[in-house]
Amino acid sequence: MPPQKDARTKLLDAAMAVIRGKGFAATSVDELCQTAGVTKGAFFHHFRSKEELGVAVAKHFGEMAAGLFATAPYQTMTDPLDRLLAYVDFRTAILAGEIPEYTCLLGTMVQEAYATHPAIRAACEREITGHALTLAPDIAALLARQGRSDIDPAGLALHIQGVLQGAFILAKATGDARVAADSLGHLRRYLTLLFETQPQRKALP
Amino acid sequence: MPPQKDARTKLLDAAMAVIRGKGFAATSVDELCQTAGVTKGAFFHHFRSKEELGVAVAKHFGEMAAGLFATAPYQTMTDPLDRLLAYVDFRTAILAGEIPEYTCLLGTMVQEAYATHPAIRAACEREITGHALTLAPDIAALLARQGRSDIDPAGLALHIQGVLQGAFILAKATGDARVAADSLGHLRRYLTLLFETQPQRKALP
Repeated sequence: MPPQKDARTKLLDAAMAVIRGKGFAATSVDELCQTAGVTKGAFFHHFRSKEELGVAVAKHFGEMAAGLFATAPYQTMTDPLDRLLAYVDFRTAILAGEIPEYTCLLGTMVQEAYATHPAIRAACEREITGHALTLAPDIAALLARQGRSDIDPAGLALHIQGVLQGAFILAKATGDARVAADSLGHLRRYLTLLFETQPQRKALP
Repeated sequence: MPPQKDARTKLLDAAMAVIRGKGFAATSVDELCQTAGVTKGAFFHHFRSKEELGVAVAKHFGEMAAGLFATAPYQTMTDPLDRLLAYVDFRTAILAGEIPEYTCLLGTMVQEAYATHPAIRAACEREITGHALTLAPDIAALLARQGRSDIDPAGLALHIQGVLQGAFILAKATGDARVAADSLGHLRRYLTLLFETQPQRKALP
């Protein structure tokens, strides 16, 4: 039998599911306690406020994602372009199941709470940027291979993250993961056009 | 003097501003009435519920945007590629002012309300898709010019909209419009790589 989850972990897992389904503001502490099967006393033992839970669940989501990506197939590729494209393929492959299962808790929270909950905004920025930047070394290697210095590796890594976040919104608006997958197909084509072409002529000094 | 706005328009304008600042669920009818300077009676004369206001404000936002884009500089271009790239440049140029002023009401609402308010989801889909598809004829002309049929014009138009939506999330997460502008720069480079290259070899039957 798996070890019993503690109340804090139960609350964080409940928050991931409920907030991805209806947003942060619409999620009440009562509903989180009910979903987690813990008392309100337990909630306030672990979190001083719903905002503090919001900060903690951003980190919890980031850790869950880090575990998922650390063991994902793209990590086994040896060429940086193969690995980058396989990352996009992996993101496309996991657009499966119900919308709250494949969309991003961080994008959902920061969309509405960026101004009203600065601590949540900061936590979402940390996790979104942190994940995006895991791609930056491969992008830097690909740019170096082409001898081009007009693109910032971190900027392209964040663009990839932006396309993912936008794809989730398209899926939510249409109720259909295929439009998100189509958008990732365009991202894949962009990366291919960028890195499979001949090295660019260097800019004049 | 400009004509006085009626209570309904005041409420819709207030909703555009307040919801873009804190999301749909966190916005109360009381706050909307206070911001609009109208009574709660006036609110419920015009809208049966906050959800009905949400549907109406999606349409209101779409009409406001349609007016803005109808008179935008990119419309004066004669070549479809110039026009498409000038659209992206226009979207980049209007990333100015405070975050609630340049981000998208529709993406903000659908992000949290897609499952809990199906009528709002449908209204957001209509407006997001409707705006995106204004680009489809130019994209279709560019694809025809290259003799390629492997890309769906509507799909690429939605991808452009997705990149915009994702760019707004990056701006909210970082508190900085520049990361959104950088992402639109990558979109511009993608469209340039796609349409400025030589016609593709047609796929075999």
